[in-house]
Amino acid sequence: MDKVAYLKDKANILRLHTIRATSKAGSGHPTSCLSCAEIVATLFFKEMNIDPKNIDYLDNDEFILSKGHAAPILYAALAELGVIDRDKILTLREFASELEGHPVPRVKGIRVATGSLGQGLSIGVGMAYAKRLLGIDRRVYVLLGDGEMVEGSVWEAINFAGKLRLTNLTAILDMNRLGQSGPTMYGWDSGEYERRIRAFGWQTYVCNGHDVEELIDVLDGAKSSDRPTFIIAKTVKGKGVSFLEDAEGRHGRALKGEEFKRAESEISPRIKNLYFKPTNFIEAKFKAEERRAKFAIETDYKLGDMVATRVAYGKALVKLGEINDRMVVLDGDVKNSTFTEFFFERFPERSLECYIAEQNMVGIAVGLQTQGFDVFLATFACFLTRAFDQIRMASYSRANLKVAGSHGGTSIGQDGPSQMGLEDIAMFRSIFNSIVLYPCDAVSSEKLTCLTANYRGISYIRTTRPKTPVIYDNDEEFHIGGSKVLKRSGDDVATVVAAGITVHEALKAYQILREEGVKVRVIDCYSIKPLDEETLRRAYLETRHIITVEDHYAQGGLGEAVASLGLKPKILAVRKMPHSGMPEELMAEQGIDADGIIREVRKVTDKRQIR
Amino acid sequence: MDKVAYLKDKANILRLHTIRATSKAGSGHPTSCLSCAEIVATLFFKEMNIDPKNIDYLDNDEFILSKGHAAPILYAALAELGVIDRDKILTLREFASELEGHPVPRVKGIRVATGSLGQGLSIGVGMAYAKRLLGIDRRVYVLLGDGEMVEGSVWEAINFAGKLRLTNLTAILDMNRLGQSGPTMYGWDSGEYERRIRAFGWQTYVCNGHDVEELIDVLDGAKSSDRPTFIIAKTVKGKGVSFLEDAEGRHGRALKGEEFKRAESEISPRIKNLYFKPTNFIEAKFKAEERRAKFAIETDYKLGDMVATRVAYGKALVKLGEINDRMVVLDGDVKNSTFTEFFFERFPERSLECYIAEQNMVGIAVGLQTQGFDVFLATFACFLTRAFDQIRMASYSRANLKVAGSHGGTSIGQDGPSQMGLEDIAMFRSIFNSIVLYPCDAVSSEKLTCLTANYRGISYIRTTRPKTPVIYDNDEEFHIGGSKVLKRSGDDVATVVAAGITVHEALKAYQILREEGVKVRVIDCYSIKPLDEETLRRAYLETRHIITVEDHYAQGGLGEAVASLGLKPKILAVRKMPHSGMPEELMAEQGIDADGIIREVRKVTDKRQIR
Repeated sequence: MDKVAYLKDKANILRLHTIRATSKAGSGHPTSCLSCAEIVATLFFKEMNIDPKNIDYLDNDEFILSKGHAAPILYAALAELGVIDRDKILTLREFASELEGHPVPRVKGIRVATGSLGQGLSIGVGMAYAKRLLGIDRRVYVLLGDGEMVEGSVWEAINFAGKLRLTNLTAILDMNRLGQSGPTMYGWDSGEYERRIRAFGWQTYVCNGHDVEELIDVLDGAKSSDRPTFIIAKTVKGKGVSFLEDAEGRHGRALKGEEFKRAESEISPRIKNLYFKPTNFIEAKFKAEERRAKFAIETDYKLGDMVATRVAYGKALVKLGEINDRMVVLDGDVKNSTFTEFFFERFPERSLECYIAEQNMVGIAVGLQTQGFDVFLATFACFLTRAFDQIRMASYSRANLKVAGSHGGTSIGQDGPSQMGLEDIAMFRSIFNSIVLYPCDAVSSEKLTCLTANYRGISYIRTTRPKTPVIYDNDEEFHIGGSKVLKRSGDDVATVVAAGITVHEALKAYQILREEGVKVRVIDCYSIKPLDEETLRRAYLETRHIITVEDHYAQGGLGEAVASLGLKPKILAVRKMPHSGMPEELMAEQGIDADGIIREVRKVTDKRQIR
Repeated sequence: MDKVAYLKDKANILRLHTIRATSKAGSGHPTSCLSCAEIVATLFFKEMNIDPKNIDYLDNDEFILSKGHAAPILYAALAELGVIDRDKILTLREFASELEGHPVPRVKGIRVATGSLGQGLSIGVGMAYAKRLLGIDRRVYVLLGDGEMVEGSVWEAINFAGKLRLTNLTAILDMNRLGQSGPTMYGWDSGEYERRIRAFGWQTYVCNGHDVEELIDVLDGAKSSDRPTFIIAKTVKGKGVSFLEDAEGRHGRALKGEEFKRAESEISPRIKNLYFKPTNFIEAKFKAEERRAKFAIETDYKLGDMVATRVAYGKALVKLGEINDRMVVLDGDVKNSTFTEFFFERFPERSLECYIAEQNMVGIAVGLQTQGFDVFLATFACFLTRAFDQIRMASYSRANLKVAGSHGGTSIGQDGPSQMGLEDIAMFRSIFNSIVLYPCDAVSSEKLTCLTANYRGISYIRTTRPKTPVIYDNDEEFHIGGSKVLKRSGDDVATVVAAGITVHEALKAYQILREEGVKVRVIDCYSIKPLDEETLRRAYLETRHIITVEDHYAQGGLGEAVASLGLKPKILAVRKMPHSGMPEELMAEQGIDADGIIREVRKVTDKRQIR
């Protein structure tokens, strides 16, 4: 059978590429590539519907290398497809090369970054669901390592895909028995995997991962199932190089000198460079839209209305949903707290309840956005910490994600610290190219939500649990990197830089101080990243004293962001062990309420009098 | 049967307490308590071996309320046991009360904080494993909600407990069908849970969670199994109050006015205050040791030796292990990279391979430390982001955890950003009461590791992948909140504040500048939290310019920490999209190498000349 010989040949070609590339680089994971050579060859040169010229179009089958450390074999496959130059492979891991140590979407044919294990399947679930939403009859293939099967995020994805009955999703387990530092938990015991995965509602196959004919059979079987399919492929780590096969202590080590030559001399003679007419090549037509839409929404609030910013966020989602049919909203069983429920009620077909599984929710979002969807997701700010690794990796995926965290700060009150977002600003500020917005009233909440809709990258909007008064007119404009000077005079003795709930404390403090004849400037620093440097610097120059106040831990928050500009703020933030109580009690205890601000301003004015 | 009547009675007493407490508080989750009243009553008043007077001793059975929002019923049970005053219950959620909205270990009988769902079972695994290590023949009971069964961390724990065959672990699922915002994924379909859990090697039972006799039977059955046991208890949310039973939209809402009165009048008449001689009360004897040992270790390096700080960390673990038999080390399949493998080889019985499941690893660590163990855990710095929520909760558990993250920064080189810890300092700085240490050479690495051994709380030590030269003598001393002034003169034009790998870049820069006649102060800021304020402030006063340099994102890192002191540092940090390459290329690109430091110093000196 020509086809089989051809695929075996391709597998060895891929092997040779990976050995050469990793040895040239002097690092990498050759043995992790060798174990999946037949799997990758069978997928790319027989199974997957691919248009090599337009592999970025949406009507290709999709491939995700969840075991990202096998990147070289993915590059090799793309080179053999003609998507990238063959010569390029030898630039693996070089400073100037886009062929990085682990995949990133700088390479055509790669849509997401992988390398932090256990994340690929959730992304695959998102992609498969996206294809279903788009009505594109294509499949998504995810290749996993057996080491990562212990990650809970994998089981979140398995659970969810089973629930959604994603028949267009095929996962392949490269069960090579060896992790980085020793054997995996279940070695070659395919039954352990099969029993678990079947229990979650998947079809499963066990096969020899080096037998191309078996692989073809099971990959075909996946297509006619009414469930997602998991193929447990028994493989040998280092397969194809005698002294590497099933050898411990060979993870993540490139071959050098004599060993490299021996490996090459074992693989090379097997390669005949056979040709077989590809039957899987297609002509893709569905290009992902490049959209630079500028959405705008109008608000209708009255000054002084008491509205929680989380409610306004929910309302904004509905308005955006009306004008953007590519918008999808995800929530983790708190939609009646984040108020995504407004969108869920209005657009059920573009809403996805992800239940209490934040890692999977972010992974699905990353998958959905690769297919052109504008994805909003929300949960409590504190529970986003659950998905920090996924969010971090999303930035390397150059993903377009609109994240909202509700229940920011001690102001949630009685539920206590387990439910308080007190590190979310620090977390999102540390994400590459992110923006961090924090509205203080309903008008700004809606408008900032709209700004995230127009931003490409990872945006974070933080909302507050209690109701706060509307302080902005409906025609007020906001922009990324902006701020609002709410109070200002020629003789301000200090500037209070607040955001979110503390803006209202700052305004209360202003009023009390004003009655005492002390004037302070008040800035609503709604864009925490990027900051409105110019306005803040001017305030510092003019008032000499900056006091920042935030309902968040001091580390990595608003205060430190302002401090990083060299403006020497006095930072009022959460510094005592948080606990339950009423919002006003808790904010008072932390010194982030009006009284706390006033005390700080008095220190400034006292100092002046002493002079 | 008296016993059964007694337990039913107790269940209703618990119900009444929770209704009263939440209504008085005006918030909370009464319906989530009502569903598990029989389960909690049967556990605390029949099943668990408890010494109410010494419930904090280690030879009690343990209970973890993974569904932390049912806190009031746990408080009610403790009150009925006499551990806390009955009157106290009505202080639920008050500012001055330790009975917080979700459990925290301010209350006797509660060892860990819960409330972020999906974390209790991992902690239970750690506790059960600890009892096994201690040779204490007691059981650990974990009560889970059905909403949290979707969290991957639960499946990490299920997987691991099955693997460890923790026969002393019983999990109970309060399958009440309703989550916060709607039905759970599988409602009352106990088969969905049973099939999955059995596949992971557990014994399972399905029972009526309101039938005390059934509960007694299955809880007894758990004791004779050779596996951990999961009891799937079918329950009704709001059970016992007619208008709350199985009603949607009642999650997290306290009863008010008429509704409260109706509920009370339904429950009260059922209560007879029956007495039954407790058979489960024991006399506990094994008090957890209060140890304030001050460990010390000696090093034996030569100045100039090239040794990676991660290797020195591994060596320090062995030395500490020799003098501390309560020390346990965990790793996530990277022990040959973090170098915990030295400890694993020397003390296999006190080492636990947790595989690639960081959330579960942290949960296990939290469980172990409740039983008096000193727990060290390590993985790549970047993968600790996976467990941010668990680490955050560990701080509310007042846990004693010694965390190490290897492979900090771009200096890991070719593997690329997925493997680079670039937000770990920001993450750990934001943890309440944490310390963050960052050694630059082998001597400081060992000594800082020893400091974490002596610290009670959450400590983080960051190690570096490449080898770095030893710069400290073996008798050099280090302390939490300390720093080392490595270069200093009376005419320093600026101070370079570095940590870890950048210390060596700062020293190179010093040398080059010195040859040009420009003197800079160089500080090794090895304690990033807390900072050595005094030394830094003096340097600022004396040299007027502070330049911080770190192999970490600018947000929340060393630079911002220094900026928060008002010292206006110029912050050199990772600001460009990281990628693969050689360490020196990458550090140069980010401007955090010696050249980057020199450029910055020159800006300072140029400014001076202009003046």
